[in-house]
Amino acid sequence: MKTSNTDTVWQTIREETAREVQSEPVLASFLHATILNHDSLETALSFHLAHTLASPAASALLVREVLEEAFAADPEIGCAMRADICAVYERDSACEQLSVPFLYFKGFHALQSYRVAHWLWQQGRVSLALFFQNRISCEFGVDIHPAAKIGRGILMDHATGIVIGETAVVGNNVSLMQSVTLGGTGKEHGDRHPKVGDGVLISAGAKILGNIHIGEGAQVGSGSVVLKDVPPHTIVAGVPAKVIGTPDCDAPALSMNHGACCG
Amino acid sequence: MKTSNTDTVWQTIREETAREVQSEPVLASFLHATILNHDSLETALSFHLAHTLASPAASALLVREVLEEAFAADPEIGCAMRADICAVYERDSACEQLSVPFLYFKGFHALQSYRVAHWLWQQGRVSLALFFQNRISCEFGVDIHPAAKIGRGILMDHATGIVIGETAVVGNNVSLMQSVTLGGTGKEHGDRHPKVGDGVLISAGAKILGNIHIGEGAQVGSGSVVLKDVPPHTIVAGVPAKVIGTPDCDAPALSMNHGACCG
Amino acid sequence: MKTSNTDTVWQTIREETAREVQSEPVLASFLHATILNHDSLETALSFHLAHTLASPAASALLVREVLEEAFAADPEIGCAMRADICAVYERDSACEQLSVPFLYFKGFHALQSYRVAHWLWQQGRVSLALFFQNRISCEFGVDIHPAAKIGRGILMDHATGIVIGETAVVGNNVSLMQSVTLGGTGKEHGDRHPKVGDGVLISAGAKILGNIHIGEGAQVGSGSVVLKDVPPHTIVAGVPAKVIGTPDCDAPALSMNHGACCG
Amino acid sequence: MKTSNTDTVWQTIREETAREVQSEPVLASFLHATILNHDSLETALSFHLAHTLASPAASALLVREVLEEAFAADPEIGCAMRADICAVYERDSACEQLSVPFLYFKGFHALQSYRVAHWLWQQGRVSLALFFQNRISCEFGVDIHPAAKIGRGILMDHATGIVIGETAVVGNNVSLMQSVTLGGTGKEHGDRHPKVGDGVLISAGAKILGNIHIGEGAQVGSGSVVLKDVPPHTIVAGVPAKVIGTPDCDAPALSMNHGACCG
Amino acid sequence: MKTSNTDTVWQTIREETAREVQSEPVLASFLHATILNHDSLETALSFHLAHTLASPAASALLVREVLEEAFAADPEIGCAMRADICAVYERDSACEQLSVPFLYFKGFHALQSYRVAHWLWQQGRVSLALFFQNRISCEFGVDIHPAAKIGRGILMDHATGIVIGETAVVGNNVSLMQSVTLGGTGKEHGDRHPKVGDGVLISAGAKILGNIHIGEGAQVGSGSVVLKDVPPHTIVAGVPAKVIGTPDCDAPALSMNHGACCG
Amino acid sequence: MKTSNTDTVWQTIREETAREVQSEPVLASFLHATILNHDSLETALSFHLAHTLASPAASALLVREVLEEAFAADPEIGCAMRADICAVYERDSACEQLSVPFLYFKGFHALQSYRVAHWLWQQGRVSLALFFQNRISCEFGVDIHPAAKIGRGILMDHATGIVIGETAVVGNNVSLMQSVTLGGTGKEHGDRHPKVGDGVLISAGAKILGNIHIGEGAQVGSGSVVLKDVPPHTIVAGVPAKVIGTPDCDAPALSMNHGACCG
Repeated sequence: MKTSNTDTVWQTIREETAREVQSEPVLASFLHATILNHDSLETALSFHLAHTLASPAASALLVREVLEEAFAADPEIGCAMRADICAVYERDSACEQLSVPFLYFKGFHALQSYRVAHWLWQQGRVSLALFFQNRISCEFGVDIHPAAKIGRGILMDHATGIVIGETAVVGNNVSLMQSVTLGGTGKEHGDRHPKVGDGVLISAGAKILGNIHIGEGAQVGSGSVVLKDVPPHTIVAGVPAKVIGTPDCDAPALSMNHGACCG
Repeated sequence: MKTSNTDTVWQTIREETAREVQSEPVLASFLHATILNHDSLETALSFHLAHTLASPAASALLVREVLEEAFAADPEIGCAMRADICAVYERDSACEQLSVPFLYFKGFHALQSYRVAHWLWQQGRVSLALFFQNRISCEFGVDIHPAAKIGRGILMDHATGIVIGETAVVGNNVSLMQSVTLGGTGKEHGDRHPKVGDGVLISAGAKILGNIHIGEGAQVGSGSVVLKDVPPHTIVAGVPAKVIGTPDCDAPALSMNHGACCG
Repeated sequence: MKTSNTDTVWQTIREETAREVQSEPVLASFLHATILNHDSLETALSFHLAHTLASPAASALLVREVLEEAFAADPEIGCAMRADICAVYERDSACEQLSVPFLYFKGFHALQSYRVAHWLWQQGRVSLALFFQNRISCEFGVDIHPAAKIGRGILMDHATGIVIGETAVVGNNVSLMQSVTLGGTGKEHGDRHPKVGDGVLISAGAKILGNIHIGEGAQVGSGSVVLKDVPPHTIVAGVPAKVIGTPDCDAPALSMNHGACCG
Repeated sequence: MKTSNTDTVWQTIREETAREVQSEPVLASFLHATILNHDSLETALSFHLAHTLASPAASALLVREVLEEAFAADPEIGCAMRADICAVYERDSACEQLSVPFLYFKGFHALQSYRVAHWLWQQGRVSLALFFQNRISCEFGVDIHPAAKIGRGILMDHATGIVIGETAVVGNNVSLMQSVTLGGTGKEHGDRHPKVGDGVLISAGAKILGNIHIGEGAQVGSGSVVLKDVPPHTIVAGVPAKVIGTPDCDAPALSMNHGACCG
Repeated sequence: MKTSNTDTVWQTIREETAREVQSEPVLASFLHATILNHDSLETALSFHLAHTLASPAASALLVREVLEEAFAADPEIGCAMRADICAVYERDSACEQLSVPFLYFKGFHALQSYRVAHWLWQQGRVSLALFFQNRISCEFGVDIHPAAKIGRGILMDHATGIVIGETAVVGNNVSLMQSVTLGGTGKEHGDRHPKVGDGVLISAGAKILGNIHIGEGAQVGSGSVVLKDVPPHTIVAGVPAKVIGTPDCDAPALSMNHGACCG
Repeated sequence: MKTSNTDTVWQTIREETAREVQSEPVLASFLHATILNHDSLETALSFHLAHTLASPAASALLVREVLEEAFAADPEIGCAMRADICAVYERDSACEQLSVPFLYFKGFHALQSYRVAHWLWQQGRVSLALFFQNRISCEFGVDIHPAAKIGRGILMDHATGIVIGETAVVGNNVSLMQSVTLGGTGKEHGDRHPKVGDGVLISAGAKILGNIHIGEGAQVGSGSVVLKDVPPHTIVAGVPAKVIGTPDCDAPALSMNHGACCG
């Protein structure tokens, strides 16, 4: 199997993994099957996710066919997954290798699985998209409606309990911590979920409800309940959330300074 | 296999599914095995849940035997599950078919599995009820004590992180969002969990603690911490929660207007 | 198989289980395989957890080899697991037998699995530790960094959504409820997570962020967001959290009086 | 669960099993799940065979539904399986309990699975019958066409390699050893396989080919190739087979004296 | 998914299957996943065989990757498998549809799996070829050395116990019944197994040993032991085998008249 | 993990495997988990066989516990398995590495599994021994009664269809080909199966029936039916078998010259 020399993310993951195989024999089996046997990030990920998303209702073989169909049809998914891997690597101080999110971070796995479900939704394959949504929710504790729109370079840290609704839009380079909700209000159809700008950081347990805008570079404090627009480059916190300051950088999602919200 | 013509919920689910089989061949396999092969909602659900709740500790065959025993012994479970399906369909704007919660919504699956655990508890089969509680918690991220009492027409939306304690009582037509806790205080035995009236809406992440009453038609805002009784037909919000208004209808669980709590 | 007569926790669990086998035939199969076939708490737990943590990436046989290696190498794990079982039994009023947390409480399972991951981390086996962290997070919805340090006699009640970061330290006899976060701030490396003293009670959904100290015997109210040190033997609550009183006993983790925080 | 006191085969199996559970803890788990949890031979067998015949193509739940449908529709299957158990017990000197063939003899398992496939074939459900034939052949190494007709009180000893063709007929109280073929000749359709009378013993590796009659109480020596009718109460042996003597009893299938064929 | 209209074998299999789905709902699930979801015979077979050959040692995903690699690299496999399907259909009077051997005949499955193992062997991938040989032997009871050479249009009927050695060569349009051995003599390396000409029929249980030639259009009687060359267009039978006649047609493999050998 | 340098069989297997891992990445995963992760032949084999013998009735964890108990209690099993590996390596010209029978030959797997079942039988654990017999028969198509006594240095080549009865005794350095039966006659209890001397070669499909002696260094031709004692160092063949010559060496099992029987 040959490897494209120009895909530096994949190259790096392979090199890191080749070293791990030497140092941890217990994982050699898993690392060979999941990474070293494959010649692209996409085939490796379809292998890895297929094992995780498989169930008595849909075998790993069947799930993988869908994943590969999506990866082949929409190259944007491949671009986004590379940006997501780099986002975790750059922002999560507990992550020191590119291979770590790929192999072990369920936030990354949930996000890529959603990207496939979103592609299915766009193709009008609503039932299969819902099927994926269910598997993602059961396996990872992350519930993203397949119609939601999510940009590149996203970090979903820890990830358990994240909920993102049908008409939500999330920009690029956003960081979402565990138990964050981007939810709707009321049962009417139509546009009813938050729009989150680029570079936004939403801390653990924050609930953002309704068709409101979280401006570019804004930061939402942990445990906040946000029901109104948040201006760009401001920090909001509290129940209900109020503006309490200004982030220490243009894109708080990148600096991950959760403590800033009570400065 | 024949189908009772008088069970309109089941009839509708079958008809919806028969159409899906045509349009999404990848799911045809799953839809036949899970719905079209069966002749009642109960046998279909026992098949579907048995696959999900099975584990190395208890095979799908064994789990299904217990589910079928419960469904046969207590027809109320069947009534409640039909009301729950309709509740999701009516209140969740992202849900456009009756078959969708049946097939894909883990809140619905967790709730029906609890109904079986509750029946086991009532029969004095405490260990088996706890076994089910464990499987529900691991698989769905929903932890409902089997002794809790829960009415009909319940929506558990998104569901991850919902916790309902041993002596909690939940009325009919209640809507519970993700990460809601109906918890106890102190370690003494006895009645120590909330009593939630009919038609109540509890928004995402709200924690309701202690043997307190949430009056009929009340609404609890997202992220609230409720430690005292809530009068009927009021909205409470905040940490700790305070009365902030009146719902826009008699049963806020039905209108699902989470944003109202900061009106 | 003989049983050490001096391990009273294990003896009690075996006796309770022998009675259950008589009264609940559906579980006899599971109870024999998981408890009665074994002659120590450690071999029984390695059997039980191996089944739960197994995945297509690592078979139950492989997982069990790692668990047994850790139990044999570090007897402290065995001491801690016995203290944890007793902690659940004493503090959780819904738990009336020692065998119940061992068999059915995923907070206990997540904690013991973490103890093995922590031992791996201490041995420099970083990748395998991360592998365990992933499995614990996917299976139980509990995300504990393997480098975190956690004492004995810990109760993780309900457990879904608990997150504990890399440099967090948790003392002895601490109780953590569902959705509690002991998180970091910023993306710099180094010591950036909370230090929690002995006997502390942290109620559902509380977020404690940054390298701060939660003093011995303190109590953190449900839904609180804590960003500053908490003095010993105080109650804090709110978003952000403020001191609101004094616990009703030296170790609120033991009395579990969550309602106290709004006295 | 109650047990019919009048089914002595089932009663005996249960009593034998209850003793085994005491003496072999490693099997307690299996014995409870497979026998003690059930209240009839039929439900126990559907449980046991469903686990064995399940495959990625058809889950245990689905297989069991078919088995139960057949057992309920055709009580003759239940009669035959009881006669078969007794046949093994009486004729196989290595079998000292009724529960042994039920639990452990693949010849018995293959035969009962065929009985269900035969019922499916009779109902015109050809594909499902072939599906069962495939599973029986893969799992047990026994290939019985579902259209073949086989009586009661049959012993298939060791069983690997037994082949029985489409138009074969086997009487009552017949014993077939491993690698026996009841095969056809030519590719024309129509009646082209052997007819085997009551009480016949066919020793290991014998091949009987074509629409010929093996008379009542006859015996076919090991390794024989039989291409012509065999008169009742004679012994044939050799390649091709010739009459070499007379069996030492009316029904050689019952005395199992394979050595007689070279007296 | 579109289907090549020019592949009449695959077209016929699809049409037959589409009809079966209507008439046997229990199999609809299996038939969709195995045939109707796919757009070529090769992808359908890789799906079907991957499920069968998978084991804890190699997941279905991994097995399928190898199968697909072989099918893509060597189009001859695809030609041979089509010829094999037609061979079964034409010669086996119990087979009335092309889809039947594809779905249900383990002789066909073993043969196609061997074809992939043979391709691996040719590529010098000896270990992986032996791995496949093991899986074929365990799953189907058929042991074909991957170095053996086997032509097109082969029927392996019933198949259990067939053994074909390392240096055996089998021509085109050959029929092999159950328990046939093409074995070696002695332990020296080198050419030591039979060479079987086109159109040969080898009946059940025949053992052919050593580097001998079975001439074109010959027939070997059931239970024979053949240790010397067999001239073309002759029938041999017996232990040891002797010439006993002449087949009733040029290619006895096609007429399948096993009984002829004692004419 | 360290490896005993004095176990040359195990050392060689590890070295061969380390080379394979480099050359066949598809197997790297399997080879690490099955061989390289282990530090003795016994732990590697218990891992490998546990995966193969596992079933819904007994998980791999449970099976492995029994295997390890037997290996630890009876060191003779370890000696015999090493002799068996060497026997295959020396006699099977298709086997060029010691690791090949260990990893891929089901005759070897069946034999070692029998050795464990035999140890169980000797301990009076009859049911568990029968359980193993069943699994061996279903998985490998080899049916060895656990009471049979079998020496060291045994080759079971191809293995499908081998049957060895309860009171059979097999000496050292014996070779048994596929479909060989060492069977009984009659249904009386007591000593009724063959006694096979050292160095005997029994060719494919031979049936040896009754309490007769096959003398040391004898050879039984393929397809023979043996009903009388065979003198040492003679060749018998035919149906029924007659003396036809003298083997070309003292121990025909070692030279494997099947063709000799018609010299």
